[in-house]
Amino acid sequence: MKADDKEKLILITNDDGLYAAGLRTLISIMKEFGKLVVISATESRSGMSQALTVKHPLRVKLLEEDEDKRVYACSGTPTDGVKLAVNQLMERKPDLIVSGINHGSNASASVLYSGTMAAALEGCLYKITSVGFSLNSYSSTADFSVCEEYIRKVCSMLLRESLPQGICLNVNIPALKAGEIKGMMVARQAMGSWQEEFEKRKDPAGKTYYWLTGRFINHEPESTDTDEWAIHNGYVSVVPVTTDMTAHSFIDILKTKF
Amino acid sequence: MKADDKEKLILITNDDGLYAAGLRTLISIMKEFGKLVVISATESRSGMSQALTVKHPLRVKLLEEDEDKRVYACSGTPTDGVKLAVNQLMERKPDLIVSGINHGSNASASVLYSGTMAAALEGCLYKITSVGFSLNSYSSTADFSVCEEYIRKVCSMLLRESLPQGICLNVNIPALKAGEIKGMMVARQAMGSWQEEFEKRKDPAGKTYYWLTGRFINHEPESTDTDEWAIHNGYVSVVPVTTDMTAHSFIDILKTKF
Repeated sequence: MKADDKEKLILITNDDGLYAAGLRTLISIMKEFGKLVVISATESRSGMSQALTVKHPLRVKLLEEDEDKRVYACSGTPTDGVKLAVNQLMERKPDLIVSGINHGSNASASVLYSGTMAAALEGCLYKITSVGFSLNSYSSTADFSVCEEYIRKVCSMLLRESLPQGICLNVNIPALKAGEIKGMMVARQAMGSWQEEFEKRKDPAGKTYYWLTGRFINHEPESTDTDEWAIHNGYVSVVPVTTDMTAHSFIDILKTKF
Repeated sequence: MKADDKEKLILITNDDGLYAAGLRTLISIMKEFGKLVVISATESRSGMSQALTVKHPLRVKLLEEDEDKRVYACSGTPTDGVKLAVNQLMERKPDLIVSGINHGSNASASVLYSGTMAAALEGCLYKITSVGFSLNSYSSTADFSVCEEYIRKVCSMLLRESLPQGICLNVNIPALKAGEIKGMMVARQAMGSWQEEFEKRKDPAGKTYYWLTGRFINHEPESTDTDEWAIHNGYVSVVPVTTDMTAHSFIDILKTKF
């Protein structure tokens, strides 16, 4: 596969690994838009946030190549994968980075832990238009086809009009049947957090270990302009996400504290 | 060590591991403020961002205990460590979480990759006042004593007055002699990114691998209100950092795009 300058060149990645159903759905849709480079790990890398691999070398393997796409396996995190693809593997900067479709919501505070969204944020830092898609279902038989219409809509828009520098999109799709979705809603990140319920167990040698489990708590369930409200009320949420983590509204107050 | 309700209880962590000089400096200062619980990995966990360990069980070991502190080794990431300490190891929620002192700057886009700052952000999500400190030096002989005065100032303020929900502080200290620092400056995160320069090598079997290297590029070197400007002009930068990644200023524009 070689993309000429007239064709769109799209980088696809995810954090659920190369064999995830969400990635396969995404590839099948994105083929309509241009030539694809796909990079991901062979195993899932969920909850990796924007982690980098700095203590181990990175390995990359070209797994598939045809007229329309190249598929690479990468030993690193989603962020490593974007860095490697953009710097080492692609003939030119992609026109679009599409990450997902994640198996599970990345709304609210989950954006902070998400490898899917980290890949999109990494795209932002390279000044590449980027988006992450997630389906609000952890079921192993989740039907990703409901996402197709909304991925087409969002990616058509993104290939037509670029986003401001440092901003990417976090798109979360409710796990409903296609006809049950009421539409798309531009929203803000809900204030929320995970309430941990560590499972404490003993291994066969009698030593304690912990499994991280937990459940999400929406701190503002009454707000109707959030991503959490949207996906629980039948809308696809679209949140513009920024790489600027400054709490700008608090700067002037903080100056008075020292 | 047991902290009664009258004493301050402080959680200390970092991403450079338990044997890092920055952590030792931080412990020696924070003892002045209250009882300490320290948790970190035995090895460094730099660049882990807000990664979670979900595929492997977590192990924790109590390494030291005296009148003033308990020190735990944790097999996970900085974020795992905060979650375990707050949920499983501490008698009550800490009054303050202090992360660092990181070996190297966490200004500008480095906040997105930083394990040090991820620990502080995790504190925010638990509604605990949190701060990360970093020294702008990667030298193995870096002198952390220059940080002491500023850590005392910031932590005194934080134990006196809490921060708004979802906001923590990112404090970066220039690697100067104490007398050369001009003071503290409340700043915003500079727009910047890392320009990667992967090192491509061959292993003894002839197979290619990559080392991630790179250098930081400040996209707005002329701006005088940023953390990058502050630390390169002799000031300790203090950036309020938010867990809300929404690009609020773009919401109304984005609504017109669909």
